[in-house]
Amino acid sequence: MSLLIRGGTIVTAERMARADVLCADGIITAIGPDLEAPGGAVVVDAEAAFVMPGGIDPHTHMELPFMGTVASEDFYTGTAAGLAGGTTMIIDFVIPGPTESPLDAYHIWRGRATKASADYSFHVAITGWSERVHAEMGILAQRHGVNSFKHFMAYKGAIMVDDGVLLNSFARALELGAMPTVHAENGEAVFHLQRSLLAAGITGPAGHALSRPPAVEGEAAERAITIANVIGTPVYIVHVSTEQAAAAIARARATGQRVFGEVLAQHLVIDESVYHHPDPAFAAAHVMSPPFRAKHHQNALWAGLASGQLQTTATDHCCFCAPQKAAGRDDFTLIPNGTGGIEDRMSVLWHHGVRSGRLTAQEFVRITSTNTAQIFNIHPRKGSIAVGSDADIVVWDGAALRRISASTHHQNVDFNVFEGMEVTGVARHTIAGGALVFTEGDLRAVRGAGRYIERPCFTPA
Amino acid sequence: MSLLIRGGTIVTAERMARADVLCADGIITAIGPDLEAPGGAVVVDAEAAFVMPGGIDPHTHMELPFMGTVASEDFYTGTAAGLAGGTTMIIDFVIPGPTESPLDAYHIWRGRATKASADYSFHVAITGWSERVHAEMGILAQRHGVNSFKHFMAYKGAIMVDDGVLLNSFARALELGAMPTVHAENGEAVFHLQRSLLAAGITGPAGHALSRPPAVEGEAAERAITIANVIGTPVYIVHVSTEQAAAAIARARATGQRVFGEVLAQHLVIDESVYHHPDPAFAAAHVMSPPFRAKHHQNALWAGLASGQLQTTATDHCCFCAPQKAAGRDDFTLIPNGTGGIEDRMSVLWHHGVRSGRLTAQEFVRITSTNTAQIFNIHPRKGSIAVGSDADIVVWDGAALRRISASTHHQNVDFNVFEGMEVTGVARHTIAGGALVFTEGDLRAVRGAGRYIERPCFTPA
Amino acid sequence: MSLLIRGGTIVTAERMARADVLCADGIITAIGPDLEAPGGAVVVDAEAAFVMPGGIDPHTHMELPFMGTVASEDFYTGTAAGLAGGTTMIIDFVIPGPTESPLDAYHIWRGRATKASADYSFHVAITGWSERVHAEMGILAQRHGVNSFKHFMAYKGAIMVDDGVLLNSFARALELGAMPTVHAENGEAVFHLQRSLLAAGITGPAGHALSRPPAVEGEAAERAITIANVIGTPVYIVHVSTEQAAAAIARARATGQRVFGEVLAQHLVIDESVYHHPDPAFAAAHVMSPPFRAKHHQNALWAGLASGQLQTTATDHCCFCAPQKAAGRDDFTLIPNGTGGIEDRMSVLWHHGVRSGRLTAQEFVRITSTNTAQIFNIHPRKGSIAVGSDADIVVWDGAALRRISASTHHQNVDFNVFEGMEVTGVARHTIAGGALVFTEGDLRAVRGAGRYIERPCFTPA
Amino acid sequence: MSLLIRGGTIVTAERMARADVLCADGIITAIGPDLEAPGGAVVVDAEAAFVMPGGIDPHTHMELPFMGTVASEDFYTGTAAGLAGGTTMIIDFVIPGPTESPLDAYHIWRGRATKASADYSFHVAITGWSERVHAEMGILAQRHGVNSFKHFMAYKGAIMVDDGVLLNSFARALELGAMPTVHAENGEAVFHLQRSLLAAGITGPAGHALSRPPAVEGEAAERAITIANVIGTPVYIVHVSTEQAAAAIARARATGQRVFGEVLAQHLVIDESVYHHPDPAFAAAHVMSPPFRAKHHQNALWAGLASGQLQTTATDHCCFCAPQKAAGRDDFTLIPNGTGGIEDRMSVLWHHGVRSGRLTAQEFVRITSTNTAQIFNIHPRKGSIAVGSDADIVVWDGAALRRISASTHHQNVDFNVFEGMEVTGVARHTIAGGALVFTEGDLRAVRGAGRYIERPCFTPA
Ligand SMILES: [Zn+2]
Ligand SMILES: [Zn+2]
Ligand SMILES: [Zn+2]
Ligand SMILES: [Zn+2]
Ligand SMILES: [Zn+2]
Ligand SMILES: [Zn+2]
Ligand SMILES: [Zn+2]
Ligand SMILES: [Zn+2]
Repeated sequence: MSLLIRGGTIVTAERMARADVLCADGIITAIGPDLEAPGGAVVVDAEAAFVMPGGIDPHTHMELPFMGTVASEDFYTGTAAGLAGGTTMIIDFVIPGPTESPLDAYHIWRGRATKASADYSFHVAITGWSERVHAEMGILAQRHGVNSFKHFMAYKGAIMVDDGVLLNSFARALELGAMPTVHAENGEAVFHLQRSLLAAGITGPAGHALSRPPAVEGEAAERAITIANVIGTPVYIVHVSTEQAAAAIARARATGQRVFGEVLAQHLVIDESVYHHPDPAFAAAHVMSPPFRAKHHQNALWAGLASGQLQTTATDHCCFCAPQKAAGRDDFTLIPNGTGGIEDRMSVLWHHGVRSGRLTAQEFVRITSTNTAQIFNIHPRKGSIAVGSDADIVVWDGAALRRISASTHHQNVDFNVFEGMEVTGVARHTIAGGALVFTEGDLRAVRGAGRYIERPCFTPA
Repeated sequence: MSLLIRGGTIVTAERMARADVLCADGIITAIGPDLEAPGGAVVVDAEAAFVMPGGIDPHTHMELPFMGTVASEDFYTGTAAGLAGGTTMIIDFVIPGPTESPLDAYHIWRGRATKASADYSFHVAITGWSERVHAEMGILAQRHGVNSFKHFMAYKGAIMVDDGVLLNSFARALELGAMPTVHAENGEAVFHLQRSLLAAGITGPAGHALSRPPAVEGEAAERAITIANVIGTPVYIVHVSTEQAAAAIARARATGQRVFGEVLAQHLVIDESVYHHPDPAFAAAHVMSPPFRAKHHQNALWAGLASGQLQTTATDHCCFCAPQKAAGRDDFTLIPNGTGGIEDRMSVLWHHGVRSGRLTAQEFVRITSTNTAQIFNIHPRKGSIAVGSDADIVVWDGAALRRISASTHHQNVDFNVFEGMEVTGVARHTIAGGALVFTEGDLRAVRGAGRYIERPCFTPA
Repeated sequence: MSLLIRGGTIVTAERMARADVLCADGIITAIGPDLEAPGGAVVVDAEAAFVMPGGIDPHTHMELPFMGTVASEDFYTGTAAGLAGGTTMIIDFVIPGPTESPLDAYHIWRGRATKASADYSFHVAITGWSERVHAEMGILAQRHGVNSFKHFMAYKGAIMVDDGVLLNSFARALELGAMPTVHAENGEAVFHLQRSLLAAGITGPAGHALSRPPAVEGEAAERAITIANVIGTPVYIVHVSTEQAAAAIARARATGQRVFGEVLAQHLVIDESVYHHPDPAFAAAHVMSPPFRAKHHQNALWAGLASGQLQTTATDHCCFCAPQKAAGRDDFTLIPNGTGGIEDRMSVLWHHGVRSGRLTAQEFVRITSTNTAQIFNIHPRKGSIAVGSDADIVVWDGAALRRISASTHHQNVDFNVFEGMEVTGVARHTIAGGALVFTEGDLRAVRGAGRYIERPCFTPA
Repeated sequence: MSLLIRGGTIVTAERMARADVLCADGIITAIGPDLEAPGGAVVVDAEAAFVMPGGIDPHTHMELPFMGTVASEDFYTGTAAGLAGGTTMIIDFVIPGPTESPLDAYHIWRGRATKASADYSFHVAITGWSERVHAEMGILAQRHGVNSFKHFMAYKGAIMVDDGVLLNSFARALELGAMPTVHAENGEAVFHLQRSLLAAGITGPAGHALSRPPAVEGEAAERAITIANVIGTPVYIVHVSTEQAAAAIARARATGQRVFGEVLAQHLVIDESVYHHPDPAFAAAHVMSPPFRAKHHQNALWAGLASGQLQTTATDHCCFCAPQKAAGRDDFTLIPNGTGGIEDRMSVLWHHGVRSGRLTAQEFVRITSTNTAQIFNIHPRKGSIAVGSDADIVVWDGAALRRISASTHHQNVDFNVFEGMEVTGVARHTIAGGALVFTEGDLRAVRGAGRYIERPCFTPA
């Protein structure tokens, strides 16, 4: 089966050029001006559009069991919504309990993900430490294509790990050539503040932000970076939301340390005022960790992306509907943490990033796709428009307008944090695995069409 | 009993002026030009000398039981050596075990200290957390004049506390109007590195420095500052030895946070090359935590003192003789940590600080005495030359020379880290509690003459 | 003539203590509890009040000829207004034209100032360079008590100097033991922006702020600091108004360089929104350089004062009435630059600084008086409550309230930038030169009672 | 004429892949595995080698008339030496005198450069300001392919410009869509220090470094960045050699400003100790501006390249032989400034950068070629291995060793600052314009084969 993308301007991390793209059997087979369409080929119109690597969302939580409920978006619906927005791959998280087997958990998540309509891969969380965990990290890395391990510095009493675990796990990752990643918040401080706020009678969603002030994230980022420095490993900080964490990353990089930072589309454009909304359900719908921040943090995040000190964008897509969020009606610490965004990330980044002049189109490609592929070692299979690469492509209309709304989105959740936002920049067509899965508003996602993508380790140290 | 200091130039934190000083019954009773000596008054010659508040060493460990042995210097010998160097008061540390009662420990330390020849006070360490600890902090603060509590972020498996304890204890200190202080090193990282180094066959003293790299201190300082910020309390970082920790303090202060930093005389002038000395006993004699650092860190410490970002100087005086240090001959982690310095701090600071042009004489007074008195709320009783203040005074010959040596010092230890250093700046006379206790080389310290100094709490928050 | 201040709490840079203060012949002659009032002594009630060194305003421009007009406040009215607010001394500026003689100008200013009702001294501006200027700096420093020289890095075409002049003058100041000071704004950039804004039709007062963005001040501060570093001299930056300049100072100090920064009371509490006021006369009344800034800069200034990285506070008191300000009705570059504040500085600092918890009372004394006296080498004659010091004292009621208004102030200007501000902290009595010149609202300033204060040079390098 | 590069691993800014490369008529025409060699094609062996975009040196001064002499290397010899080292293009500088016509100067330089053996382009220096200069910038940008203008902030009395010129020229460049670049040193400070040093009898080459301390560069970088910020234009800082300048760039980038920095191969590996060499001729041979620095600056430069905060590498290739350097025998200010390096840049970067683990091969390509091509808008014609790009290619043997020496180099100068350095990483073949111009040590450069490369402006603002 072949497909020809005709008339567009290819944008990659490195270059921009008018050319057609031919795909066959899920692979890009030719790039050049005025390519011939083979017999039977689907021809996709890219006139006046950009042809870019499909987005990769390196941070999603489909159907995650969390805080007593399960995320509403499953691997099928979630990946399908991604396709509608130009995202053709996700890296989700396997999260075992502290005493559970990472390897067993991995298999459970693999099972859940078979329904995915786009390619997927898994970071595996290390939530406790034992000889078994040490051994299974090896098995996962060497036999199952897991080259990154996640660590939660928050969520005390659940999946939080202490510095001892970080040290052991980072050292093991280095040994394997895998990348350690961290959710950076000082969980002890969060816990202490939660108790103090509740004791003071602050039980509503505003308490959520108060319990996780910016310094608590900055501190944890600094600590994770120091631990990586001590071990001699690179490290990747997920969902950087503050000036403090961005500065910690930049300081480390200025000494030559290899530290990477991820930013969520949500944090780039939404600020903490949402928690003061008169409707507590609206506020609760925005509860995620790290929380939304005072507006001045946004500039640090945009500048980090523009300057290359922050490398990737994600969504931490983790959806809970209003009835689920309502579990924390009387106690903000019980509100399931998470917001959605996989369908809108690319548009939000294009509109507020490229159209505003903050980012070039090539930088857009880097931070939505290529950098993630490189950091997690699946480039140039993913994140590239090149002969031999997977045919995961978005034909992007950089001038088309759309209005974001829960009433029209494909995400399986009853709320959209970008509700009402008019964005310029729309996926005209999405091609995944060589198939046209979204075209001019028509979503043709196929349940189970997604494949598990093994990510080989880097050369071990 | 009265004593007249004649002909000197008074230097305080604020001013310099020629004047005589009259003391009676342990108190300064008059300051002015050409005072009359009352009948029977001891007359002390201060011609061509500075009359300054006696030094206060806010960080000593006399006769400390530590790492399987006991520090060689006891409260008598240690305070006497201090008097010989112009230091008239110490603040030592009560260090209970993690499950012991801080209050009981306080009483034990009070018993030990009755032999002191100079005034003393105690920080009390919080090494574990329980309702009892919470209650005893109140008793210590409200009934026993303890307005500062110490926390060790290192020494895993012994007295290290985690962030949860820091949060609880800082909050309790704030409630009481007491100052939390921290030994800032990431103990988990130190432990991990110790294991790795030993496993790699690095067993000698050089391993000590390798197991405690600068980032490990910088990280912990940042964390303690963040925790203080979250709680809303000031915080005092003991023995700042790195650019990283100094920078963390300066960054916090630049946002208005009240953070204080202490520097040891030793770190200002000795660098990490001592650990590479061919004689392992020499290297072991320098084992302390934080360890000596690469030379470039020293400039940050001097600049911190000159700019007011670091406020106090101390010694962490904690002496172990060669046979004690030898316990770690085959394993650097067993070397008792500590070096001496109480007798030499003032001279080292004067010589390398004032004579070199880095500091003014008034800044010298601030960082050797007044700032400590103010931060720990015993000013103007201590740290001042003023009518009504305790008659703790050093008559300082800023031009006299002396050569530091273990063979001549008064400290009860067989080694001096400043061995052979020629310093300009010598205590000509030391007056403590109104008595002439050191005069032109003659030490007249009296066992038991020191008094316990209660330090009232600040107004609680 | 003698005067006894009874029942107050003395606050100095170093300490706080209850004591009475006796003054005779313009000098403090005794300090102690329960002093006897000599026969005929004026007795001043200080019950429940603080007795503090009179404020020193290190930056005023009385009756300055500037931008085609002359400041409305003369040396008599201006110093009198200062006395009403607790300020007992000013350091004004002698500003010769670029080709004029600094020495001649000095004599002209001396003549103008004879009418002053409080003590005064002069910084002399170096606005051009020649052998004569070089020579006259020596005469001023050695014979006329001028130990500081001012340099304008802005006001192109008028008094701006280039880096060549700064280098020569800083080197000469170092040679003399005098302090170079700078108005730090890149005058070329300001000029360029002024031309561009006018060309774009932006002629109103909002253009003033747009023509002097924060970076323009930060750059110039950095440059002045570098030039001081190259020459090896300390340097004092007047009216620091931005995060950028405060950060430049802090960075230099963190390397041990001696850099000092002054903050205006106005910049601490007023922000740039004043330039968008619908009444252009209101906006014009706020035109000064540097201009008011976005609100977030204020925290950096307060934190700089609290942390000791910025040392002094001033007002740049330079008053123009509405008809004078109106000269720039059609061209913001013609609005005479300046605002008043000498009467209100102390209250504004106490209310927003001490009452808010940002500063202690001792820090208040340092930044309103003592630090200035020390930096400009007139301490302890000024800036201190000590026997032998000049009897320049304010009896400060820290709890009394007053409402600032042009309708009630003593300043000779028709506008008050603090109009309507309710402040806690009022001068109950002001004593200058031993005389009670302001008491419970009654201003008794005496024309000509002020004396010229010689400021001796520091030991030349 | 066609040429096939067979068996190598292509490395571009974005990716690495094994593939052959076919060139015809100076253009890359095909890339893929196992390409067929057309009849008559030259076949170049790339087994076990990397096939990378030819190096671009964005900073050279061939046959520059400077300081009373003319650089020894002309456009032919210099570009030929570049080819021997894998560099296939230079951007040289047209430098008119302050009152000369930039356009006339451009034509003069174009004439000189016709002898070049590799492609070349020109930055044009703006050394004075007038209506004519303003007009000619437009002509150069719009008709002659000049999209960058250079400004010297040093060299007082010669080509130095003040901030007024910078402002005018930057504004004009923005208008045209051209990039302003600066040599950042405070020329007034340098001049002042030169006079002082000479007056103090310091006449030897060591004086050169003393007259240009790091702060003087950091200050100028900060100033240029501020001016760019005020104007709203990107800016490119040539030869960043200090922590201070690197930090200034990083600080600006962290706010989102577009600032670029260039590093010289020489500054990355040579330190200031060369100026203390006993042989003054040796020291003089290292005289360049900025001078070599204390060793700790090097880490900041390497980290800047690794983190992406500094983007390009160059050589400032400007050669003077010993008799020329001797002009400054008695006065260091007369030593012609400049060192060579065009032949060795790539090897030095590979050896100390890639082999040491500081940089990846892809980062090497970015900083030696691609980033320069992108910043100066000639990508993907240059700096890329792609169909349609110019066939400027280096076949790089990353494991081959060579020993750098003036006795073997192709540069027309009698000295090599890297003399004796053993480097791993050698150009096995260099292809320029589709021709094999250097192969296994055999240099086949053709006089006049180089072409002038027009660089189109960016979209004007
Ligand atoms: Zn997370
Ligand atoms: Zn997550
Ligand atoms: Zn300690
Ligand atoms: Zn200690
Ligand atoms: Zn000014
Ligand atoms: Zn002024
Ligand atoms: Zn240059
Ligand atoms: Zn150059």
